Amino acid sequence: MIVAYMLIRAKHGKLKIVSSKLKEYPEIEEIHEVYGRFDIIAKIFVEDEISLKQFIQNKIFIVEGIHDTETLLVYDNLS
Amino acid sequence: MIVAYMLIRAKHGKLKIVSSKLKEYPEIEEIHEVYGRFDIIAKIFVEDEISLKQFIQNKIFIVEGIHDTETLLVYDNLS
Amino acid sequence: MIVAYMLIRAKHGKLKIVSSKLKEYPEIEEIHEVYGRFDIIAKIFVEDEISLKQFIQNKIFIVEGIHDTETLLVYDNLS
Amino acid sequence: MIVAYMLIRAKHGKLKIVSSKLKEYPEIEEIHEVYGRFDIIAKIFVEDEISLKQFIQNKIFIVEGIHDTETLLVYDNLS
Amino acid sequence: MIVAYMLIRAKHGKLKIVSSKLKEYPEIEEIHEVYGRFDIIAKIFVEDEISLKQFIQNKIFIVEGIHDTETLLVYDNLS
Amino acid sequence: MIVAYMLIRAKHGKLKIVSSKLKEYPEIEEIHEVYGRFDIIAKIFVEDEISLKQFIQNKIFIVEGIHDTETLLVYDNLS
Amino acid sequence: MIVAYMLIRAKHGKLKIVSSKLKEYPEIEEIHEVYGRFDIIAKIFVEDEISLKQFIQNKIFIVEGIHDTETLLVYDNLS
Amino acid sequence: MIVAYMLIRAKHGKLKIVSSKLKEYPEIEEIHEVYGRFDIIAKIFVEDEISLKQFIQNKIFIVEGIHDTETLLVYDNLS
Repeated sequence: MIVAYMLIRAKHGKLKIVSSKLKEYPEIEEIHEVYGRFDIIAKIFVEDEISLKQFIQNKIFIVEGIHDTETLLVYDNLS
Repeated sequence: MIVAYMLIRAKHGKLKIVSSKLKEYPEIEEIHEVYGRFDIIAKIFVEDEISLKQFIQNKIFIVEGIHDTETLLVYDNLS
Repeated sequence: MIVAYMLIRAKHGKLKIVSSKLKEYPEIEEIHEVYGRFDIIAKIFVEDEISLKQFIQNKIFIVEGIHDTETLLVYDNLS
Repeated sequence: MIVAYMLIRAKHGKLKIVSSKLKEYPEIEEIHEVYGRFDIIAKIFVEDEISLKQFIQNKIFIVEGIHDTETLLVYDNLS
Repeated sequence: MIVAYMLIRAKHGKLKIVSSKLKEYPEIEEIHEVYGRFDIIAKIFVEDEISLKQFIQNKIFIVEGIHDTETLLVYDNLS
Repeated sequence: MIVAYMLIRAKHGKLKIVSSKLKEYPEIEEIHEVYGRFDIIAKIFVEDEISLKQFIQNKIFIVEGIHDTETLLVYDNLS
Repeated sequence: MIVAYMLIRAKHGKLKIVSSKLKEYPEIEEIHEVYGRFDIIAKIFVEDEISLKQFIQNKIFIVEGIHDTETLLVYDNLS
Repeated sequence: MIVAYMLIRAKHGKLKIVSSKLKEYPEIEEIHEVYGRFDIIAKIFVEDEISLKQFIQNKIFIVEGIHDTETLLVYDNLS
């Protein structure tokens, strides 16, 4: 299984729309709005790397109101 | 009471419009235009965390001309 | 309850030491090493804001090998 | 009069020492510890630009435990 | 006299338009397109701080094609 | 010969369009989509500095869907 | 196979030492010193994700003179 | 001829030492201390790219008190 965190900045004023949309995705195990340099932290949990790639391209890229995303892949669960 | 600083970048050319609008809000105790990486520093003073959340979502998000904001929550007044 | 995410950059070569130490803290509910601009993401779960402040000052500041931390306070669980 | 904000990052673990030292300076009108990308926000209030320059070089540069500072000069009080 | 450097990022594809427009301003003593994180460095030379403020608000803000600017005020010529 | 790396951030949702377009250019020797703070890394290989300048202005600037680029010029092949 | 790019910043003055050391590693397929925000770009080519993790922890972390690294994992070769 | 700008951050408290040292170099045509995210801007003027490379490696890298530098190569003088 693959775990990744996504740091998301919404376009100004679009936080709630982005946040609501992302909450519908089963690939996002946990999601929070935060204060600071980023607006949203999402924890992604998918089957494998191809699923992660497809999730980003098919489900994240279509969400309007996102300014940019930064994906941090977790690797400490590898053994 | 909750104190927070907001570092604001305006869209190019929109500084005065943003600045004027923000000055109308009683939650902003102090606001300045600055040189450097950010355009505006605003000091926010609200009743509690829920008020801060509502202020950002209801009053900051509707201000057109803002590119992005970064909220720095003050915690040294906690005891 | 207060939830916060901490984005941590370790000093070069100190990642495993930092990571091991942080895993001992009960306030850290979840912690992962990640690829990208940050080295570690930690999810913090504490009683209240004063506990968060004390946790950072008493337990994070003493961990050698940390270069810097950036705390992102979660606020969407407020109602 | 000159007003400037200083965004300060302390070396890991040195926040309280830096903060205490800065609070002794009369040029710093207000100072807060904050969550996020910076550790401290200080509001500086001095006579003129030369005083600001001297304050930074003579009083800020000698404070051990500071990692870096970013000075944002306020200009909206000019008329 | 006041000297300042402005680090400018143009919107994608707008570099030449921005650059041409800025070269018309007598307040810009020197201007160069550069490789790296910024697109243009401009050296500004004006009478005093009020002139700098007015230059930015009246002449920089109207230039279309600029994404953002970061003004670095020179202070070592103060004595 | 001149070698440079370009770190590219696409506008949200435009990664595949940008990526496809860039792959057509013979000046781009290698190109990859990556996780993290940037979306694409491209290795550019051109005759000389003037070719690099022209490539950026004539072929990169016209690609819609790019948010920004950061060009890192390789210099260790100089002797 | 796994491909990743590593953006490396050396401690001031340590670029040549870092660069020489990294060139000895067979996992680094290509490495260049660059102008700009980063000092070195290295292209890493390893068997699988576990090899990448071990390479970073066993071979990168021991290189003195590195300030920090940012690993960008390539994913477009997945199918 | 090659022109480049170097954005320099000094280690905390070391600005004057760095600044004095750099002023001795004939390759630095102009140098200023600035407020903001960087501490010093230096304009470098050298014969060719090899001279720039050698200047950085032989004269900049030996200056103690520099935290990091970011070199922005000017290319608009190419024709």
